[in-house]
Amino acid sequence: MKIKVGVMGSAAGSGKPEIAKTVTEKAEALGQAIATQGIILLTGATTGIVYLVGKTAHDAGVLHVGISPAINAQEHIADYKLPLDACDTIIFTGFGLKGRNVVLVRSCDIVLFIAGAMGSLNEFTIAHDEGKIIGCLTGSGGVADEAGYLLEKFAKRTRAQVFQDDDPESLLDSCIKSL
Amino acid sequence: MKIKVGVMGSAAGSGKPEIAKTVTEKAEALGQAIATQGIILLTGATTGIVYLVGKTAHDAGVLHVGISPAINAQEHIADYKLPLDACDTIIFTGFGLKGRNVVLVRSCDIVLFIAGAMGSLNEFTIAHDEGKIIGCLTGSGGVADEAGYLLEKFAKRTRAQVFQDDDPESLLDSCIKSL
Amino acid sequence: MKIKVGVMGSAAGSGKPEIAKTVTEKAEALGQAIATQGIILLTGATTGIVYLVGKTAHDAGVLHVGISPAINAQEHIADYKLPLDACDTIIFTGFGLKGRNVVLVRSCDIVLFIAGAMGSLNEFTIAHDEGKIIGCLTGSGGVADEAGYLLEKFAKRTRAQVFQDDDPESLLDSCIKSL
Amino acid sequence: MKIKVGVMGSAAGSGKPEIAKTVTEKAEALGQAIATQGIILLTGATTGIVYLVGKTAHDAGVLHVGISPAINAQEHIADYKLPLDACDTIIFTGFGLKGRNVVLVRSCDIVLFIAGAMGSLNEFTIAHDEGKIIGCLTGSGGVADEAGYLLEKFAKRTRAQVFQDDDPESLLDSCIKSL
Repeated sequence: MKIKVGVMGSAAGSGKPEIAKTVTEKAEALGQAIATQGIILLTGATTGIVYLVGKTAHDAGVLHVGISPAINAQEHIADYKLPLDACDTIIFTGFGLKGRNVVLVRSCDIVLFIAGAMGSLNEFTIAHDEGKIIGCLTGSGGVADEAGYLLEKFAKRTRAQVFQDDDPESLLDSCIKSL
Repeated sequence: MKIKVGVMGSAAGSGKPEIAKTVTEKAEALGQAIATQGIILLTGATTGIVYLVGKTAHDAGVLHVGISPAINAQEHIADYKLPLDACDTIIFTGFGLKGRNVVLVRSCDIVLFIAGAMGSLNEFTIAHDEGKIIGCLTGSGGVADEAGYLLEKFAKRTRAQVFQDDDPESLLDSCIKSL
Repeated sequence: MKIKVGVMGSAAGSGKPEIAKTVTEKAEALGQAIATQGIILLTGATTGIVYLVGKTAHDAGVLHVGISPAINAQEHIADYKLPLDACDTIIFTGFGLKGRNVVLVRSCDIVLFIAGAMGSLNEFTIAHDEGKIIGCLTGSGGVADEAGYLLEKFAKRTRAQVFQDDDPESLLDSCIKSL
Repeated sequence: MKIKVGVMGSAAGSGKPEIAKTVTEKAEALGQAIATQGIILLTGATTGIVYLVGKTAHDAGVLHVGISPAINAQEHIADYKLPLDACDTIIFTGFGLKGRNVVLVRSCDIVLFIAGAMGSLNEFTIAHDEGKIIGCLTGSGGVADEAGYLLEKFAKRTRAQVFQDDDPESLLDSCIKSL
């Protein structure tokens, strides 16, 4: 069965334009790196930087499965204001954003973070406690750059392994090799 | 986006060998019918008649997504005694059998029933209340043959449409046309 | 710890006024019977006949815990159009109606049915498959009167025990004794 | 309806004995403070410092509702190794630890943190994103002392309000007044 890689993160790590540009470039490079690996991409079928990774991977032929907080496509679009077009298929949990995150992270073999605010931090805590392989794309800000702090301050023994790298391809390689 | 068809049902509609044979033939024919339509198959990644449909479709090239009650692959195999080999990828809900059914049914555009005991009846009630297109493969026993009774005795106005047919291909056609 | 009894069912077993009157009387009698037993009542914090049982029990001093499909009180009222006043406290699942049912039934030691259409049938299937003590208040129509048929047609071996009685007090007694 | 206050946190903020002693004292004081307010206590029906708060409040007459990751009491005890005796009643989600947290936090009006490692950080992110009143008992370590950092680094606009105080009674007062 193909490896399932989840990508999580927010719109940008900072309001500063030079960082936004860097994050956008890393997102596209990550989408391309995913496309070279024969893996399945999982995301929250969401907007921002995650959409960009998902769309890039999808357009490059990757199977992209979105895990939605909504009960169906109508609610996904109308109530959550989320897009459908970057995904190949959508799983509808109907559990809201935070309930959806649980199903999303559980379904991944590897969970990658690019930037990421409080919502991504939620996903990081699930990934850590459920013992996933975690990859942090450093230089993108947010959760991806704060992993060291998080692991020190909120330490808990789990089977999780955390990799940090500022190069998408190399980060993905390290995560896949550790499986 | 491709149509998502869920297949639900139990091991057999009856202990009688002649019915088991009929159900097996219908299951394989349903798997083949799914393969001709360019659709995605969703199941509970389970055993019995549903496994047979899923394996047939998978082997014929259909993308088969299993929705698991387990938190991860290890629990799927060790605790739930469920197979992985008929699926192309698995979503892990970690919400147990009855919680898993909610995510499974919500994710389908069309829900097909072949035979089916109390567990499938659970899925029928979700599909009905959440307004899905429902197809019942008659002559297989269980839920698939009792839909008329269920709709009469437990009537409730929803957007659900129920089709009944003893031919897998024709049943699937009717369901797809009604979308 | 006190026994937790869930009450499930729909608005009425039939549109016929004489049945509606019978069901109303049985609902109030059930609420009173619950109040004499020192037990905790669980419901879906919903309308109709279940509201009537819950309000009667609540007003007679029973602790009534509602399990809501909503994410919070605002959604409970505004989107689901559900009442709060019969409950002493509410648990918010945010999993929608069918996801809520899973948490509701799992939390009960005993699950009672009074009347009940497709939504209650969903709860019956969960209660049966998860091995609960089930009590059916016969003469109220719907699920409560169809248990015999359901157990025969959709037979599956579980730890569930099903009691049927047209007297609320006597039904509750039988269920409690079987624990 | 009574205010529902959730208490979350880990065994201790540090392995140092003098901190463990402080946290224990604060936990008992928090349990007593809850008992003076006529509120309902919600916890994860768990061990450690949260057990201590819950047991203190329970013994002082507070209604303590535990939200369990397990499907039923047997799994709660045997598989999750969790206690039942500090709770007055238990809701069984069957959604695992991280799924349980979603239902637990959603059900609270106020969420209090005392110490807290990665599991509590998960609950903090849910509470923040779903706009809860959050109280951090400072001087206990972990999440409770890192709220300032978390809000700065993972900033996101929600309706959440965060209070910090090293006195349990005063913290609870501030949270209740802000409702």
